[in-house]
Amino acid sequence: MSRLQRSGPLFIDLYELTMAAGYFDQKITDEAAFSLFIRDYPADRRFFIAAGLAEVLDEVENLVFSDSDIAYLGSTDLFSESFLSYLEGFRFTGNIRAMPEGTVFFKNEPVLEVSAPLIQAQFLETMLINTIGFQSLIAGKAARCLYAAQGRGLIDFSARRTHSSDASLKVARSSYLSGFTGTSNVLAGKLYGIPVSGTMAHSFVTAFDTEIAAFRAFAASYPNSSVFLIDTYDTLQGAENAVKVAMEMAERGQRLVGVRLDSGDMVDLSCQVRQILDEAGFPDAKIFASSGFDEYKIAHHVQNGGRIDAFGVGTKLGVSADAPYFDIVYKMVHFKDRDIKKLSPGKANLASEKQVFRKTDPDGQYLEDVIGAKDETPPENSHSLLQPVMEQGRRQVAVAGLDEIRSHVARNLSCLADTYKELAPGGEYPVRVSAHLNRIQNL
Amino acid sequence: MSRLQRSGPLFIDLYELTMAAGYFDQKITDEAAFSLFIRDYPADRRFFIAAGLAEVLDEVENLVFSDSDIAYLGSTDLFSESFLSYLEGFRFTGNIRAMPEGTVFFKNEPVLEVSAPLIQAQFLETMLINTIGFQSLIAGKAARCLYAAQGRGLIDFSARRTHSSDASLKVARSSYLSGFTGTSNVLAGKLYGIPVSGTMAHSFVTAFDTEIAAFRAFAASYPNSSVFLIDTYDTLQGAENAVKVAMEMAERGQRLVGVRLDSGDMVDLSCQVRQILDEAGFPDAKIFASSGFDEYKIAHHVQNGGRIDAFGVGTKLGVSADAPYFDIVYKMVHFKDRDIKKLSPGKANLASEKQVFRKTDPDGQYLEDVIGAKDETPPENSHSLLQPVMEQGRRQVAVAGLDEIRSHVARNLSCLADTYKELAPGGEYPVRVSAHLNRIQNL
Repeated sequence: MSRLQRSGPLFIDLYELTMAAGYFDQKITDEAAFSLFIRDYPADRRFFIAAGLAEVLDEVENLVFSDSDIAYLGSTDLFSESFLSYLEGFRFTGNIRAMPEGTVFFKNEPVLEVSAPLIQAQFLETMLINTIGFQSLIAGKAARCLYAAQGRGLIDFSARRTHSSDASLKVARSSYLSGFTGTSNVLAGKLYGIPVSGTMAHSFVTAFDTEIAAFRAFAASYPNSSVFLIDTYDTLQGAENAVKVAMEMAERGQRLVGVRLDSGDMVDLSCQVRQILDEAGFPDAKIFASSGFDEYKIAHHVQNGGRIDAFGVGTKLGVSADAPYFDIVYKMVHFKDRDIKKLSPGKANLASEKQVFRKTDPDGQYLEDVIGAKDETPPENSHSLLQPVMEQGRRQVAVAGLDEIRSHVARNLSCLADTYKELAPGGEYPVRVSAHLNRIQNL
Repeated sequence: MSRLQRSGPLFIDLYELTMAAGYFDQKITDEAAFSLFIRDYPADRRFFIAAGLAEVLDEVENLVFSDSDIAYLGSTDLFSESFLSYLEGFRFTGNIRAMPEGTVFFKNEPVLEVSAPLIQAQFLETMLINTIGFQSLIAGKAARCLYAAQGRGLIDFSARRTHSSDASLKVARSSYLSGFTGTSNVLAGKLYGIPVSGTMAHSFVTAFDTEIAAFRAFAASYPNSSVFLIDTYDTLQGAENAVKVAMEMAERGQRLVGVRLDSGDMVDLSCQVRQILDEAGFPDAKIFASSGFDEYKIAHHVQNGGRIDAFGVGTKLGVSADAPYFDIVYKMVHFKDRDIKKLSPGKANLASEKQVFRKTDPDGQYLEDVIGAKDETPPENSHSLLQPVMEQGRRQVAVAGLDEIRSHVARNLSCLADTYKELAPGGEYPVRVSAHLNRIQNL
């Protein structure tokens, strides 16, 4: 269990239940298949990173209506006694195939497919979109920050501005999967084992009569893990005060870890602060910084010769400010013996159960993805991205550890050409539909 | 308890704990006061609506470290045994004053103030910003939708695209407070008693051989609460099919509630569908619509003579797409016997504990707000917005019911001149700092 609490079966849109009641009354128990995919790229994004599967499997395995759930549904007067009895015994007994967490994927590619009796498959819609969607959105943004940082450290500072504590946990986990080194979110540290990071706020500095008194007090408590916030009054004077206390610490055999900037021109200030630290004999003291960083501000800093060693990335990561949502949908693609297309204007989707084949060169670099039919012969030099994760309601895979997923992300990103990772929108990674799947669309 | 689960004391940024350890080591137990306020308006916003206080009080009253919390903190090697022992007995024993949920407020006005021993007051930062911030952001956006809808119905459809199930609950609650009539989110229905709404998705229609067969099946299950989704194949043909089934229902003494549109030109389609329904003798059948609605698209629809009776407002409400965050901060304004200003560039704040006085005309219409010192004499014809909600750690107010808060919002919005509610950015509501508080700033 990697959250505070599961959402449970009532985290759905009502229509999933009213449709289920309709199917139940009509005795429709046939199998259906649904695809979860993203219809288009947000403005500057060109890839996504699959995240959230662990939570999905946990929810699905434990999808059981409690007595109070049934009592509430009964109180709405929307459901018959016989349907409520059916819900009391409801379990998910179907199959799920999914890309492993940490897999790079692209628009129109199913990141997950469900095949199950229609009521069950439909039932997962809201939870799947919510869980996979947000976490994949954040993991993708974190990967963009990682690319922009060119090896500098990244720490999730977003807890306060995320859209709830639950969202904050998902941001800490998703950004860590993509290569962040830690989080300020203590609850995420406890629940996921992510390294936690953080030292002092401006209020700490202002609680003392002078800035240097605040630094000395903090050093007394944290002789070997102090980072001083130096911009409360004047950043350069703050750096000088930090150096004074660092010297006092050195005399006691202690070591200042670094300083933090939180306002002003970060390129200019970081260079001046670096010089102050270096000249005072603290070349190993790090410069941390926070204040409105995202992939663009990080890239600007790096390209302009700034000297920040690690960025605290907060608000704009935590709400995915450039793209707080994307068009992720869950669509029925097969029912009984028919492949299903939806034809509403602008909302067409690929019928039939599918597989995503990733073609690579001999070094493993990604060449092209092919969206094919589930059971078609894979193209040469390709591997299949959707893997069975649940069969007949039973989990088929162990929960991957965060380190394992981090390695998977790192391998995936290293195999994706830089041109698709650039922040400015460039060409799209080639994704085509197989000839076989195309024929199915035109049947 | 109005949530799945409390976040608990570890939902904080680590620095709140490392600062606390610093204060603890220095034996600093003096009282501090902090203000929670929003520094500026997002692009088109000109007011906020206070929301989230019920959750805040519930968290603060139950802020107790569990054994596993203490064990986790111990495992980080950041804290001394004596500090961990202190945390074992930690309780919030301070005072909180806050605007009641549903109060309209403006930038720079404290929506909540805490006065408590420094460690305790600092401790609440992340939770307060997260809880009040997001819910006030959503409540404000929902109020803008309400203004744009000019009396038409509004239903929260955002569950799937919010940033977690917890976020979805906050959106359902906050939008309901601001005047929405219901939500599609079944869990919000259960936890908060919000009316739930929803009927069918496209998958229901495509699960049957024909659209009309789908409508007939649904009507069999919902003889008096059916809304047919009519855009799966062709919206106007769908309306004709809906009419056919509505006639069959009428013969059985049943009544079609309405139809739903989910794509296409909503102004044009709604007018044509209205005509089809009216001419077939169903002037009472409602037209519902979803698909990318927010305050702007609603206003466009209303201003162009569209005939939609109720809007399902989803993604753009649920993530506050126009402003997925704002600059809400929690700043120390008083410590021991000193008022505290923070001077970092662009981040100044008003020192001292404060009160917000709202001046009204004889009809109760809002004229001007005055941010004053906590204990100064209120201006004539004003009322004070910050009320004691917790004293010495004990709640001073009963939990307000949602209906009570809805009425409070409605009264507040009716007293705010339309010019400040218009969607396009207009003038700002007048907020000034009292002469007395100004003098304090310059001491």
